[in-house]
Amino acid sequence: MKVIINEDLVNRKDVNLEIEDRGYQFGDGVYEVIRIYESVPYTLDEHIERFYRSAYEISISPQLKKEELKKKLIRLIQENQVINGGIYVQITRGIAPRKHHYDKSISPQLLAYTLPLNQLKKEQKEGVATLTGEDLRWLRCDIKSLNLLYNVMMKQKAYENGAFESILIRDGYVTEGTSSNVFMIKDQVIYTHPANHLILDGITRRELLNLFKQKGWNYEESAFLKEELMSADEVFITSTTTEVIPVVSIDGLHISNGVPGSVTKEILKAFTQRI
Amino acid sequence: MKVIINEDLVNRKDVNLEIEDRGYQFGDGVYEVIRIYESVPYTLDEHIERFYRSAYEISISPQLKKEELKKKLIRLIQENQVINGGIYVQITRGIAPRKHHYDKSISPQLLAYTLPLNQLKKEQKEGVATLTGEDLRWLRCDIKSLNLLYNVMMKQKAYENGAFESILIRDGYVTEGTSSNVFMIKDQVIYTHPANHLILDGITRRELLNLFKQKGWNYEESAFLKEELMSADEVFITSTTTEVIPVVSIDGLHISNGVPGSVTKEILKAFTQRI
Repeated sequence: MKVIINEDLVNRKDVNLEIEDRGYQFGDGVYEVIRIYESVPYTLDEHIERFYRSAYEISISPQLKKEELKKKLIRLIQENQVINGGIYVQITRGIAPRKHHYDKSISPQLLAYTLPLNQLKKEQKEGVATLTGEDLRWLRCDIKSLNLLYNVMMKQKAYENGAFESILIRDGYVTEGTSSNVFMIKDQVIYTHPANHLILDGITRRELLNLFKQKGWNYEESAFLKEELMSADEVFITSTTTEVIPVVSIDGLHISNGVPGSVTKEILKAFTQRI
Repeated sequence: MKVIINEDLVNRKDVNLEIEDRGYQFGDGVYEVIRIYESVPYTLDEHIERFYRSAYEISISPQLKKEELKKKLIRLIQENQVINGGIYVQITRGIAPRKHHYDKSISPQLLAYTLPLNQLKKEQKEGVATLTGEDLRWLRCDIKSLNLLYNVMMKQKAYENGAFESILIRDGYVTEGTSSNVFMIKDQVIYTHPANHLILDGITRRELLNLFKQKGWNYEESAFLKEELMSADEVFITSTTTEVIPVVSIDGLHISNGVPGSVTKEILKAFTQRI
């Protein structure tokens, strides 16, 4: 298995991380997960754009130019002979004796590798149970950073309670899932939280909004309350790894009678055709 | 240089971190920095207690018992022949194929090493400049986690503006610095933010509160507004690595006429005697 470390393609077993890599001590870095379908990275440009934007927002300047990184990721897919799966790519600020502030001359550390990702066909077909929980995260959720502890805690809480995802609520409003965006459908309108500092602007989210526009479906990027979510006609979550998954229960209460809604099924079908 | 990895004392150059250590990808872990004075770890018990508390709060169960860890850290100081300096110790959830949730059976990864820490005599004597900035962090700042990106960003902002620390403000109230607690003195009363979910309950902070109690000095653990901070008679910051440092300016405006205040100097002196 090959891995990209900075400019090099190396064997995974030869990788040697430093204990004072700031990614390991501060979560001082950003990342992306990119889907590979039939050996082709899906929406690669969008992911790379967002990756550089996240890096910029925390003042990390990747050494590679965007086009060079794309070429390397494609080479990685070929070397690892991945048909369907994913790429994980992250960049950290670099390696330096531990202190909070940093010298601008340190070299960012790039890591990329391929990982297995299966289509969640069962979940897509049958829908999933979810929980709600308070959104206690920082107020720059638009940055796809390595500071994921709260997301981890709430995803784990969902799993330990037999659910697939936690839907986060801030000041009464639904923001997003721990690793997904949340949509609800009410009276033939599709709603999702606007892409501001409170959520990550998901690539699948954006793809779907484009799809709705093309299809002429009514949608609104506006925040909605937990009570509105609970009484929605349909709810679904989206992400690069899950694509589109119907939500059939929240906190133990059924949504759309506990089966995937018809509009959600249509959206999933249209998205699947797109990919 | 020796390093502790899990139960073993190894040469630093032989350490080999895994790319899928959850500390590296999620900041999924907690840490402590412990001061070493004259080869003795200072307030070791308090740091170890807090370390296990932080781990507990995120559901990590260290394999070593507290007493075993203490023994290992003391052995580390001896092996590395440290007279004055510090110990960095962290524990991450473990190594597993990347996904947000985790299998409870994975083994936490412990890392500890010694690092140089000098007494900041100049800063303690002359005081430091600080900036204020909005506190955008998560709402579990009582957990000493590896999710330190915002602290990093704001500490860096301070340094790039010729200041030593950023003082964070949430909803108008002073919470703490990026790596320090903040105290102000007004009309002979010493104020600091209560130890709740909005700040880290610093060991030096606690030491000082005990000192104030012993000395019969008036103090209050109550939140104060940024405006109160700006018009304080004296301001100082505390932490394990900085001990007690007078703040002589905030956002370019002088505090206590731009020189360390007399009460702060007395506190620093009393703290120095204590260690």
